[in-house]
Amino acid sequence: MTRNPAEVYAELIRRVREIALLDSCASLLHWDHQTYMPPRGSGHRAEQLALLAGLAHQQATAPAIGELLAEVEGSALVDDVRSLVAVNAREIRRTYDRATRLPQTLVQELARTCALARDVWVEARSTSDFRLFQPWLEKIVALKRQEAEAVGYSGVPYDALLDDYEPGETTAHLTALFATLRQELVQLVGEIAASGKQPDLSILHREYPADRQESFGKAAAAAIGFDFEAGRLDVTTHPFCSGIGPGDTRITTRYNPQDFGDAFFSIMHEAGHGLYDQGLDPAHYGAPMGRAVSLGIHESQSRLWENFVGRSRAFWEHSFPRARQIFPDALRDVSLDAFYFALNDVRPSFVRVDADEVTYNLHILLRFELEQALINGDLMPAGIPAAWNDAFKGLFGLTPPDDAQGCLQDIHWSGGGIGYFPTYTLGNLYAAQFFARARGDLGDLDQQFRQGEFAPLKEWLNTKIHRHGQRYHAADLVVAVTGKPLSPRFFLDHLRAKFGPLYGI
Amino acid sequence: MTRNPAEVYAELIRRVREIALLDSCASLLHWDHQTYMPPRGSGHRAEQLALLAGLAHQQATAPAIGELLAEVEGSALVDDVRSLVAVNAREIRRTYDRATRLPQTLVQELARTCALARDVWVEARSTSDFRLFQPWLEKIVALKRQEAEAVGYSGVPYDALLDDYEPGETTAHLTALFATLRQELVQLVGEIAASGKQPDLSILHREYPADRQESFGKAAAAAIGFDFEAGRLDVTTHPFCSGIGPGDTRITTRYNPQDFGDAFFSIMHEAGHGLYDQGLDPAHYGAPMGRAVSLGIHESQSRLWENFVGRSRAFWEHSFPRARQIFPDALRDVSLDAFYFALNDVRPSFVRVDADEVTYNLHILLRFELEQALINGDLMPAGIPAAWNDAFKGLFGLTPPDDAQGCLQDIHWSGGGIGYFPTYTLGNLYAAQFFARARGDLGDLDQQFRQGEFAPLKEWLNTKIHRHGQRYHAADLVVAVTGKPLSPRFFLDHLRAKFGPLYGI
Repeated sequence: MTRNPAEVYAELIRRVREIALLDSCASLLHWDHQTYMPPRGSGHRAEQLALLAGLAHQQATAPAIGELLAEVEGSALVDDVRSLVAVNAREIRRTYDRATRLPQTLVQELARTCALARDVWVEARSTSDFRLFQPWLEKIVALKRQEAEAVGYSGVPYDALLDDYEPGETTAHLTALFATLRQELVQLVGEIAASGKQPDLSILHREYPADRQESFGKAAAAAIGFDFEAGRLDVTTHPFCSGIGPGDTRITTRYNPQDFGDAFFSIMHEAGHGLYDQGLDPAHYGAPMGRAVSLGIHESQSRLWENFVGRSRAFWEHSFPRARQIFPDALRDVSLDAFYFALNDVRPSFVRVDADEVTYNLHILLRFELEQALINGDLMPAGIPAAWNDAFKGLFGLTPPDDAQGCLQDIHWSGGGIGYFPTYTLGNLYAAQFFARARGDLGDLDQQFRQGEFAPLKEWLNTKIHRHGQRYHAADLVVAVTGKPLSPRFFLDHLRAKFGPLYGI
Repeated sequence: MTRNPAEVYAELIRRVREIALLDSCASLLHWDHQTYMPPRGSGHRAEQLALLAGLAHQQATAPAIGELLAEVEGSALVDDVRSLVAVNAREIRRTYDRATRLPQTLVQELARTCALARDVWVEARSTSDFRLFQPWLEKIVALKRQEAEAVGYSGVPYDALLDDYEPGETTAHLTALFATLRQELVQLVGEIAASGKQPDLSILHREYPADRQESFGKAAAAAIGFDFEAGRLDVTTHPFCSGIGPGDTRITTRYNPQDFGDAFFSIMHEAGHGLYDQGLDPAHYGAPMGRAVSLGIHESQSRLWENFVGRSRAFWEHSFPRARQIFPDALRDVSLDAFYFALNDVRPSFVRVDADEVTYNLHILLRFELEQALINGDLMPAGIPAAWNDAFKGLFGLTPPDDAQGCLQDIHWSGGGIGYFPTYTLGNLYAAQFFARARGDLGDLDQQFRQGEFAPLKEWLNTKIHRHGQRYHAADLVVAVTGKPLSPRFFLDHLRAKFGPLYGI
């Protein structure tokens, strides 16, 4: 081979970018599937998605990529480990090695199965009928177990799935981290319950017309910096954010006219994800340097904007007068303090996405344990409803009234997302640690929020996190940004500092 | 080769179906481009569409298809010329031969250019600034001329483009057909103008709130049989229908609250297209036997429902009382006769899509002549505005007030659709001939429409046309269905029979 290394590298990037483009077509099809696709379109959509997944996998495993990659790895272009070329080569290697271990048939079968399973899940959830969904969950668990075996692992099979969402993370590390968390969270939930204090939640369940919720939520997303010229907000059963590509990031929510918080905080959450996607460097689109680090880091961005900003008192000192203008009937007789307390009510509840900052991670711990059991074969999908309700009782002292509010509440498993949930808790921990550092770097953030100034924080995140793409793995990024390895202390300190005064504990 | 012919045929169909699936992903991206894509998403969308077009072209020109096809053609499977296998083989041959003559680079360049040009056209039209669009039109015309040369032709280069939309049609045949039409239409327009009779058009320009137009239009589309479980209605600058695939057919319109007809008739029109797509046999999806014959036949379905049904007196005898309920303020003092006459007003106007049944085809004749001149090099794109206005003056006796209402009014050229317009007039002629036959076969259609019964006509079209896929070329289909070759007489007779009494001529 006498090829010029720079040309070899350019050809590698061209190919990787083409795979990302193909994946982004699938992303749009997924978005459409959940927003506007007519009901009878699902069969065809499943075929389209299976085809695209198959093509992308074919391209991602092309021997040419392996050859180009080996040449780049052996060239002088890979000097500094954090250089552009070195980072791109490292991450392309990681995904190439994973992809080449997966048989094409498995990839296509997963895509097809999940496209169909999603519609079944929607119906099963709406009728609270687990048995409808069970055969699909069985098929998906079987396929994901095949995936884990094909990819390989050094610890337990679950590691292979986890690694797809959170590169470098392990079941063993999470188990230790979550144990600390569980103990302290259960303690805090107990103290809060024992305080006897409770906000008046009824004020959040007055009439909040959906169209006004939409305009209030959109205005908040725009205020924190989400660019609606390069994005959209639509309605879906389960809120999500999809970064289709440069200039096109889509977020979704759902409106309940008798619930202020559901749509508002999911908009803040998804807009936080959206800011990450909009903050990626378009010049590196499709290459690792233009991609998000991991789902945990992605979630740190959404949780930061949802909770550390959106549920802060300073944010509402700015926003409450606006909320009152838009919802005069609901909020006329409500004080800022009462509203703020209601938004930060802590109590055990059935549905993860509605959970407060304190109990939220307990929902994740439950899923983390059930998923491990499903993947290592200790639990059959048929046993999920009973196992869910048992574990829920153990953590929250409550039994879900039905499966819709229990094991059928989340979309993730229907989409093959097993190993995904733990990244939510990681996101909370990363968010707390980043936010503590931002407070140190940016001065009085509360004062800024009170004045509706969110640009300094957004730009700090753009510079410190978004623009790096995958330069660092999550564990290294947190050190690079905050100077310390990940620790649950920042999150637990945040909870104590916030809920101590609210509940007088 | 010792392969079993049935297996060879199955493999050929599998490949052809996969190309159709890939194209259908692009269709969804096109639909989204015009409905919901955020403005800054265009650059990325162009890259996605170019990639998909390139992949589809790669697959469509794979030598394996040529080999499989040759085996099928030489086998005993191809017996009767109208048999399933023979039809599929014939049409796969036609598209394969065309595709293999087109260089991959040209296909991708066209897809990328047109995705970008569409947005420029939208802006040029809204500001009536032809110079903005001119460089893009130049690029597109140059690419389409390359396409014509690559594909080849026996008559003139324009034939090569026409053939892509209307297989077997020629410039020479259309020129003769359109000459008859022009003469008789100009004559009829003159008689109508001389009659001195004019409806009160102001009743169509009262307040028709957009949301009510939408529900009225949707109800009409559902009444004629458009299945909204397998389709949608959305808003775009330029109405269209996109058959994404089985169970997923999407139509669009636009609402002007001071214009009853614009949205309503475009909904009827696009629903007519949609009924064709929904009527195709899903068992043959992706293969010629599951595809529409041609754009002309497609247009015959839309024009039949828009004009022969939607603008008929019998239809409004059924629908006018409903219209009055939905638009009480606008229609309280309006009689059925006045409303019907207003909907069938005939007069020269600037915008094709707003044109009445009589003048409509004159708009097409103008485009047919300009397109030929662009493709054979007699006319440069820079000369389009002047040439358009001259020709318009000659046909209609009027000069467009600006290019937005002149040469910039249509989306087609921005999407590379040169050679497409003549299929609209063919559609009108086919519609008239089919409708005359349906009247003969189905008894008193007017009486059925008066009672809101559209199923017999829809099912007749399903059976006679939709379910045949591409069994016949257009010229043969019209003989198979009506017993006679295409003749403009049915259309001209329809105009005389309808407008004679209205205008007392």
